[in-house]
Amino acid sequence: MHHIGPYPVNGRIHFSTGTNLNGMPQNERLENELLSRLYPIIEEYLQKSADSETPVVEYRDPGELQDLIDFELPEEGVSEAALMDLVESYLKYSVRTGHPQFLNQLYQGFNLPGFVGEVISALTNTSMYTYEVAPVATLIEQEMISKMCSALGFDSSEGIFLPGGSNANMTALLVARNQKMPSIKSDGVSRPMALFVSDQAHYSFEKAANILGLGINSVIKVATDSLGRMIPEELDRAVQKSIKSGSTPFFVVATAGTTVLGAFDPISGITDVAARHNLWLHVDGALGASVILSAKYRHLLHGIERADSVAWNPHKTMGVPLLCSALLLRENGILALCTSCDHGDYLFHDEESLDLGKKSLQCGRRVDALKLWLSWKYFGDKGYDQRITRLFSLADYAGERISSASDMKLVSPVQSFNVCFQYDPGGLDEEALGSLARNIREHMLRSGKSIVNYATVNGQTAIRISFINPDLTEQDIDVFFENVRSAAQQLTRIA
Amino acid sequence: MHHIGPYPVNGRIHFSTGTNLNGMPQNERLENELLSRLYPIIEEYLQKSADSETPVVEYRDPGELQDLIDFELPEEGVSEAALMDLVESYLKYSVRTGHPQFLNQLYQGFNLPGFVGEVISALTNTSMYTYEVAPVATLIEQEMISKMCSALGFDSSEGIFLPGGSNANMTALLVARNQKMPSIKSDGVSRPMALFVSDQAHYSFEKAANILGLGINSVIKVATDSLGRMIPEELDRAVQKSIKSGSTPFFVVATAGTTVLGAFDPISGITDVAARHNLWLHVDGALGASVILSAKYRHLLHGIERADSVAWNPHKTMGVPLLCSALLLRENGILALCTSCDHGDYLFHDEESLDLGKKSLQCGRRVDALKLWLSWKYFGDKGYDQRITRLFSLADYAGERISSASDMKLVSPVQSFNVCFQYDPGGLDEEALGSLARNIREHMLRSGKSIVNYATVNGQTAIRISFINPDLTEQDIDVFFENVRSAAQQLTRIA
Repeated sequence: MHHIGPYPVNGRIHFSTGTNLNGMPQNERLENELLSRLYPIIEEYLQKSADSETPVVEYRDPGELQDLIDFELPEEGVSEAALMDLVESYLKYSVRTGHPQFLNQLYQGFNLPGFVGEVISALTNTSMYTYEVAPVATLIEQEMISKMCSALGFDSSEGIFLPGGSNANMTALLVARNQKMPSIKSDGVSRPMALFVSDQAHYSFEKAANILGLGINSVIKVATDSLGRMIPEELDRAVQKSIKSGSTPFFVVATAGTTVLGAFDPISGITDVAARHNLWLHVDGALGASVILSAKYRHLLHGIERADSVAWNPHKTMGVPLLCSALLLRENGILALCTSCDHGDYLFHDEESLDLGKKSLQCGRRVDALKLWLSWKYFGDKGYDQRITRLFSLADYAGERISSASDMKLVSPVQSFNVCFQYDPGGLDEEALGSLARNIREHMLRSGKSIVNYATVNGQTAIRISFINPDLTEQDIDVFFENVRSAAQQLTRIA
Repeated sequence: MHHIGPYPVNGRIHFSTGTNLNGMPQNERLENELLSRLYPIIEEYLQKSADSETPVVEYRDPGELQDLIDFELPEEGVSEAALMDLVESYLKYSVRTGHPQFLNQLYQGFNLPGFVGEVISALTNTSMYTYEVAPVATLIEQEMISKMCSALGFDSSEGIFLPGGSNANMTALLVARNQKMPSIKSDGVSRPMALFVSDQAHYSFEKAANILGLGINSVIKVATDSLGRMIPEELDRAVQKSIKSGSTPFFVVATAGTTVLGAFDPISGITDVAARHNLWLHVDGALGASVILSAKYRHLLHGIERADSVAWNPHKTMGVPLLCSALLLRENGILALCTSCDHGDYLFHDEESLDLGKKSLQCGRRVDALKLWLSWKYFGDKGYDQRITRLFSLADYAGERISSASDMKLVSPVQSFNVCFQYDPGGLDEEALGSLARNIREHMLRSGKSIVNYATVNGQTAIRISFINPDLTEQDIDVFFENVRSAAQQLTRIA
């Protein structure tokens, strides 16, 4: 058996070529402990994660983990066996995000065709800048951009895959800034500009305003209604106030699926105000743009075809592995216009080519479109319609369970994927309810039963469940509420 | 056998649980054609890529590829078998970047422990923002940041993994901008600022100046010597000129390993000028920071311990899969200070926690540190010392082969990883030599023999070989030059 030594200078993977080093014939196959142990590890991991008896995490504090795993890098390399033991430790103490009781983040579940795509991306190790080095990947990304633009109702085929929703929002703001004020690209920002988001919008817009040299103070938060949706009249008022203060309003965000409540801002109403004041309309659909694929719920995005740009994260409700984010634009050609510069001739040789790197802010860029393409091929439009629609049913089911229970209450009506509630055994004031919510969450995390988050909703601290994994069943949700009750009981016993 | 249907609403992976649907006992293992076909596909792909008889690419023009692969997304999902056929098509027509004749880009080869790390990242599908959801990954990233800071000679343990070298350079520029002019974070850019790069520096600094609201004109290019290294006296002159013009100089880049020539700017000399004018010194070591691991060649980075920040891409000469990039800083705490904003309370709960997301410009962030950690564990410091050093030997060997040949010439001396040369059969003028270089390259690409790039060096169009894959042998280099000669002969025959 040919082994890669612990620190080979020449470490090219060895394949048996019909004879081994002693001239003995052997089968033509890869002989390497890393790969031969990897396959059963994958299967065992997936098998365990699908079993609801498996803890969603074996939680350890940082100090404990430091004792359990040797993080330090060695002078001499470790053996293949020792390396795979480290892999097993990594899996043992990491959170099982594909587990049915992982309800915490806005990515959940396990998407097998997406996983296959990610493995193939790693195997081929291709950067997306030129057609020459990424021929198939380039055509796949183009196909995905066209498909997503068309789903949104855009006539264009303009967009790019980029590393995350925050980056998509920042890139949209950059394009809008340079389109509204073209001299900035060459000469920089020189006067105050203003952008508008709802008071429920994602924090990435403040980060983006910092990055882009506009300053965090340029972000103006517009009031929302009781469901957390931006009020178009309030937007109009805020824009007028900003103009009076000497600033130049240029950008407004409609959030499609807010982080806490899952609220959808009224895109049509916002578009009207945007048109009146010549603002760029960006839809932050990192969470909710995929609802366009659901025949039953796409009305929530009514008017999105008039937006200038849309951020869409397939790694959220479309289930493909992190990261998979796209920015889509209504106007062809605008991306390269606002982002490109004079590249070195060492990389881009042909102006007429399909080199996607010319419209990216990245140079090296992962192939993130492949996993989405494979997943979409596998489920089809119809499958994604059902899967997105299913998330709403799961959230509705959870909402009904809470409403009909005597010991739980919704803190806000269920609007889409998120359900915010409190456990309320009676007789507790708001502060005690809030700290009970936090303690239940913490108890479930540390016991490895369920992982869920909490947030503040209209001043109330609530447990937030997000339904992002369409492969959940109603029974999984019942188990979750049993875990909540059991945690509450144990906490009461302790207190 | 349990199959996932073509578009299941409930697509949770099915495992046989001792009985199949008909109640027949069977082994407890995963029954799924996607995974069962994936493993042999991986092995066959690696086996073929390691065989120098395999074409490095089966090159097809976009129109041909459109005929060969059905890119369009279906209404109804495809079968598992059809999906894996698409995977095979993807592999068939993609460039084999791990092939010994892939000498084009600044990532090459195939790193098995890194690949395993990437597969495990995809399997666990974790985002890096909080310790809660990424406990092991967080400690691994911290360990890597400490290790890399310490290798550079920094007393700090400050830095972050981010999506690519362009992003690392942009983030460094952002931190410097906000540190030198703290009001920008809240109020935006309001007056001209200037940054300095060599005329051989990467184009990402112009992109970054555009993004950050400084404007592309704020980037001032400093002259280099005949080897493409920045001349410190020229930097000093450029800074003084910029001050006189009313701008505020604040940032200078020393490139460690330029894209075309592989030149290392004299960091010490640049540091002295930077100190004199109170400039932030950033080292763009995307390509060359890893040379710090080579006892023999680390002198090229002399003075790097005085830099304020360093960009370092382990996906280049350390061979781990794309993307793996880090920004390292000499001062603790500065990253969060310059990049963070008021996050929503739905995500970050504990100010004292190890939540790395608070110092990242991303929200969702892939686990890119794991693959580097596993690779470094596997090779050890000693293995990486040998592997980085080996790249210089390979480049030297290629340089000697060119110098001693009667039909080839170096257009610039070999300095590190890159070798720039022309094929020169005699009797051709500069224009003809340049177009011969381009044609040889194109011919080798289309015939699938070797993939390499070209660039302009001091007005001469040259073939650029990059040595990034330490697992190459001298024989691989000999084969490359045979391919060059054979292409040249065929081109002459055609002409």
